[in-house]
Amino acid sequence: MGKGRLEAFSDGVIAIIITIMVLELKVPHGAEFEALAPLLPVFLSYVLSFIYVGIYWNNHHHLIHAVTKTTGGVLWANLHLLFWLSLIPFVTSWIGEHHLAAVPLACYGFVLFMSSFAYLLLVRCLEANNEAVKAALGSDRKGKISMLMYLVGVCLSFVYPLLGFGVYVLVAVIWFLPDRRIESRYKS
Amino acid sequence: MGKGRLEAFSDGVIAIIITIMVLELKVPHGAEFEALAPLLPVFLSYVLSFIYVGIYWNNHHHLIHAVTKTTGGVLWANLHLLFWLSLIPFVTSWIGEHHLAAVPLACYGFVLFMSSFAYLLLVRCLEANNEAVKAALGSDRKGKISMLMYLVGVCLSFVYPLLGFGVYVLVAVIWFLPDRRIESRYKS
Amino acid sequence: MGKGRLEAFSDGVIAIIITIMVLELKVPHGAEFEALAPLLPVFLSYVLSFIYVGIYWNNHHHLIHAVTKTTGGVLWANLHLLFWLSLIPFVTSWIGEHHLAAVPLACYGFVLFMSSFAYLLLVRCLEANNEAVKAALGSDRKGKISMLMYLVGVCLSFVYPLLGFGVYVLVAVIWFLPDRRIESRYKS
Amino acid sequence: MGKGRLEAFSDGVIAIIITIMVLELKVPHGAEFEALAPLLPVFLSYVLSFIYVGIYWNNHHHLIHAVTKTTGGVLWANLHLLFWLSLIPFVTSWIGEHHLAAVPLACYGFVLFMSSFAYLLLVRCLEANNEAVKAALGSDRKGKISMLMYLVGVCLSFVYPLLGFGVYVLVAVIWFLPDRRIESRYKS
Repeated sequence: MGKGRLEAFSDGVIAIIITIMVLELKVPHGAEFEALAPLLPVFLSYVLSFIYVGIYWNNHHHLIHAVTKTTGGVLWANLHLLFWLSLIPFVTSWIGEHHLAAVPLACYGFVLFMSSFAYLLLVRCLEANNEAVKAALGSDRKGKISMLMYLVGVCLSFVYPLLGFGVYVLVAVIWFLPDRRIESRYKS
Repeated sequence: MGKGRLEAFSDGVIAIIITIMVLELKVPHGAEFEALAPLLPVFLSYVLSFIYVGIYWNNHHHLIHAVTKTTGGVLWANLHLLFWLSLIPFVTSWIGEHHLAAVPLACYGFVLFMSSFAYLLLVRCLEANNEAVKAALGSDRKGKISMLMYLVGVCLSFVYPLLGFGVYVLVAVIWFLPDRRIESRYKS
Repeated sequence: MGKGRLEAFSDGVIAIIITIMVLELKVPHGAEFEALAPLLPVFLSYVLSFIYVGIYWNNHHHLIHAVTKTTGGVLWANLHLLFWLSLIPFVTSWIGEHHLAAVPLACYGFVLFMSSFAYLLLVRCLEANNEAVKAALGSDRKGKISMLMYLVGVCLSFVYPLLGFGVYVLVAVIWFLPDRRIESRYKS
Repeated sequence: MGKGRLEAFSDGVIAIIITIMVLELKVPHGAEFEALAPLLPVFLSYVLSFIYVGIYWNNHHHLIHAVTKTTGGVLWANLHLLFWLSLIPFVTSWIGEHHLAAVPLACYGFVLFMSSFAYLLLVRCLEANNEAVKAALGSDRKGKISMLMYLVGVCLSFVYPLLGFGVYVLVAVIWFLPDRRIESRYKS
């Protein structure tokens, strides 16, 4: 079974997820700069989520690139990943509209955690059928550290919400900046 | 005529259908866990419909994979399937917002029934032109039993709505869990 | 320049157009069958527009299939077609919410007319560069008759709105039913 | 690494951006021609933005066509461009709903400026890895003049909003009309 439609369908879903988040940026009631102020937390959470979905698309792109064979299990593991990613617009709106409150931020971290868990499952599923994937990925220490940090972020959100948000930003930065030293230290 | 655009267009439409359902998960008014409670039926129906649309995408993927030739009739049979699938977000919102009430659940089952009927039509249409499809599909007992169960679910919805919902969950489980014994017993 | 992305982009836009129309089917306030009654005109106009967008996708599919070379002019002629098609969800909602009133129906016909005009422009643009397209299309009498019928429908909408609607249904039927006699009589 | 998914993902995102703008054309409350009047500025800004997004898609199409190799940096430069393009529907709605007021128009110009800046970054990123792109693009004087004109438009918006809007229309016309003399004078 080819991987062409798996890529096409994932591209479609991820493209829609990344784009519908902008619909949450409701048109301001006024026509002055001040009218933009209440949108700031919505905008910041949009930027963060845009980067996260972008990271997932990049990683998905690299992962599937090494794949030669897909199975029924892979299709479902991929749909499971897309399911958790599809909840990102929902939690993004929630933290945006409630100005980075504790519970929404914890839920945001939970969805990020489940997304990275679903990604791990997909990787395991692919490794079982594709030797090349196994060789290319190594021990994926970066992914496991991210999952731990999401949990830390969830816990911190209840105590100091902004610190929790900071942890999520930090994880995004780790993935976003492909710094050679960081990459070589954490990747294998 | 090639099948590339048939796949691309179907992937696009199914990707949009599966993703716009999440827009129905409206941002809660509060920032506490309790604010999520009224969303529970909406969330559960989202999960069920996500799985159903995922099942259709998986089956469509396998079906078209075996196809070598498309005709005008095939294009329309495919659009007919996409039409019924496009109504899934509507009935999903309806059962979600009215907490699994009788009539919305019956309509949900009706749309599932019509989708499976449209799928059967598409299969017939493809079999007429592609010998390989005919050989690969067998008697499709699983599809026919599903259609029967949808009808049972529709009737049950009027008497015990939750039982109707249970039947729809059961059909999804049958397709979702590719248990060897079930597959070999029902497939040919 | 290849035609792959022209097809992919057009598929994407048409897939979105055909799917966002269903968002106009707002969740009913009640949970009884009667709650569906006010949705009937919205649903009927959704069905008609779904068929129209489906017809355009089918024809676009066949048209581009015969193309070997695209130019800057072709890309813009294609975008021009997509522009008018993108207005179909707007006029569809308008006729649906105002129960097939005169002015919305006339505007619906105007958008259909402009879409077919844009399609004609795209065909002319392609014929200039692709001999195969010219040979495959013939005189396109069916397209020209449709344009005339849209104009008749627009005029009728002002006098007897339902008759105007009937004309639009009739044109859809002519394209939908590829009756051999009709095809051979009108196509070349 | 291939460029197939980069194109597919970009096509998906741009297709969604260009189509969701039409959702801002809310169904009029009345069923007369007068009911369309308040939609006129929304419609005009939709047309302008549709053309702008179309121009970006056309240019993206030509740019990536000449590319043979993509890198992690290219993927992110591309996402950065898509980010700014994704804000076009937001600023389009803002200028539409506030009838071309000063601040929204300035923000509209700012988003156009950032989009063209992101496009320039993407070009630089691609040139570093692809000799063919460098040769095909020349000095890109047209792109640089556009960026200057966007800045002029932003400033003018604060003084004479309509003049600012006029500048944005003018830039679109420069790109839309591939007049031979203009092209040869500005392109290399």
